[in-house]
Amino acid sequence: MSVTAREIRLASRPDGWPTEENFAFADVELPSPSAGELLVRNTFMSVDPYMRGRMNDVKSYTPPYELGKALEGGAVGTVVESGVDGVAPGALVLHNAGWRSHALVSQYTPLTPVEGVSPSHFLGALGMPALTAYVGLLDIASFEPGETVFVSGAAGAVGSLAGQFARLKGAGRVVGSAGSAGKVAHLTGKLGFDAAFNYRDGAVADLLARAAPAGIDVYFDNVGGDHLEAAIGALNNDGRVAVCGSISMYNEKQPPPGPRNLHLLVGKRLRLRGFLVLDHYDRFGAMAAEVGQWLAGGKLVAEETFVDGLDNAPAAFLGMLRGENTGKMVVRL
Amino acid sequence: MSVTAREIRLASRPDGWPTEENFAFADVELPSPSAGELLVRNTFMSVDPYMRGRMNDVKSYTPPYELGKALEGGAVGTVVESGVDGVAPGALVLHNAGWRSHALVSQYTPLTPVEGVSPSHFLGALGMPALTAYVGLLDIASFEPGETVFVSGAAGAVGSLAGQFARLKGAGRVVGSAGSAGKVAHLTGKLGFDAAFNYRDGAVADLLARAAPAGIDVYFDNVGGDHLEAAIGALNNDGRVAVCGSISMYNEKQPPPGPRNLHLLVGKRLRLRGFLVLDHYDRFGAMAAEVGQWLAGGKLVAEETFVDGLDNAPAAFLGMLRGENTGKMVVRL
Repeated sequence: MSVTAREIRLASRPDGWPTEENFAFADVELPSPSAGELLVRNTFMSVDPYMRGRMNDVKSYTPPYELGKALEGGAVGTVVESGVDGVAPGALVLHNAGWRSHALVSQYTPLTPVEGVSPSHFLGALGMPALTAYVGLLDIASFEPGETVFVSGAAGAVGSLAGQFARLKGAGRVVGSAGSAGKVAHLTGKLGFDAAFNYRDGAVADLLARAAPAGIDVYFDNVGGDHLEAAIGALNNDGRVAVCGSISMYNEKQPPPGPRNLHLLVGKRLRLRGFLVLDHYDRFGAMAAEVGQWLAGGKLVAEETFVDGLDNAPAAFLGMLRGENTGKMVVRL
Repeated sequence: MSVTAREIRLASRPDGWPTEENFAFADVELPSPSAGELLVRNTFMSVDPYMRGRMNDVKSYTPPYELGKALEGGAVGTVVESGVDGVAPGALVLHNAGWRSHALVSQYTPLTPVEGVSPSHFLGALGMPALTAYVGLLDIASFEPGETVFVSGAAGAVGSLAGQFARLKGAGRVVGSAGSAGKVAHLTGKLGFDAAFNYRDGAVADLLARAAPAGIDVYFDNVGGDHLEAAIGALNNDGRVAVCGSISMYNEKQPPPGPRNLHLLVGKRLRLRGFLVLDHYDRFGAMAAEVGQWLAGGKLVAEETFVDGLDNAPAAFLGMLRGENTGKMVVRL
């Protein structure tokens, strides 16, 4: 059996903000899987901030996407035809050949469907974003119960989980920032943040000082830029920053100046630590066990924003970069 | 017995670079010591970069110097009259009532004179600067043998020790920066650095890339500013920064922009950690034992720049801020 797969390729590299022109569509014939391979029909695919970095021709922790080739990224799919003993058609797998309708994969993780939980959560609240939030908060920032935690990009996939994990782990106060009044209401309402602000409403340092009048102990940084400067100013002695991402920078042609207050690291004995989730998959089991319980017990809100159809994946990606999602942005195929 | 003590007071707070006008001299009568006190004649006093911060009226980890009152700082003195059982006149003590000819002190550390070692070293290679270098390198930056270490302000009191400690602890390569050709020659000559550069010779990032072509693993930061940005650019994966001070900032009226490349913390999993030596006196014994051996064995160069006379202490302090010292700047009374 062969199938015609539709795939999305990198047509050109963006200079600053990406556009639909940077993407191209193509149909390719996929043969039957060889031994060790699976032919998978994708049902959900992820669009994530880190993908913006891979569109640049810059050596980094993952190689850049290649011009003229299909993009990659997390996806959940159903096995159509199997070249692997013990994996039958119909099985659910997680793999990295997103941005296409079908794929031949040899590296994948078998998934066990969970009653009442959409398989799309394996791309979000039970997947990479959840592990990012979990490791960043607990291992990188060494969060302790009772502490005040500030999360930027708090309505996004990782941020909304980091803030809720802090609450569920006994934070004294959880503060979030987001880019619209609606998101702010969502944070303090449905997600149970103690305070939140719209960073477009003024200087971040002022807004943060009002939301956390006694300062903060941990900052989970998804944004960089003036958020990071404000957080350094607000951190109490022995404060910690988990530097997860800098979405405010990804589309800047010239990097803006950094925080002017790094000298505060000395007097306040602050720690800033960058991390990549790919180094921390040894913690996946612990995360999945704890988060699975919270989800099953209705204690964790795993919000998703769905965009339908592979042809709308570039729009979903661009919308995610502009902050149009609440929770995890997922393309439903 | 009473003595007339000469002391140096804060006459006014500097705005930007301090000047001689910020200091005033006064003579005061000191009575005999009460029970628990010592009357001490100071023989050496320290001028250190952190004192610049205490001249500002800003709440920090130590209170600001008070206008019209004597300054404070590390000093070595000889007991003139004792109100303490077991401490006899002639005994050597370390205390914090520098910036004066004599002082009444109730908090002090008895010192045991070491054959062939100037007591001034208790203000430098066997004192606070040494503990700063030791803790910063080993505990804060978690230095491991074989690693490449970059030290800024490397000809200064702390920097010259940090670089030599790295060499003595088995660094793969030790690189330093300083502000003159003479200091650079001193680093690669007498102090045994593998490479050094004059940061006035070009862009720090370029100079550092030439001095450490395979990148760096640890950065001991005494300077901040463009040195920190250059180091972040040069750090290898899992690199660490001990943020000890930011002497490039202390006299700036407006803090300059920070590093534009903090987003590199993520991809390279970098850690920046600020620290204050006053939190780490539990490590003093370990430091003194190891450094004492190096000094006795002639393996460590404990360079000092002496300025003679209490009246020249303000000039010594200002000269230290301008980088006129090599090694520890000490006022000899």
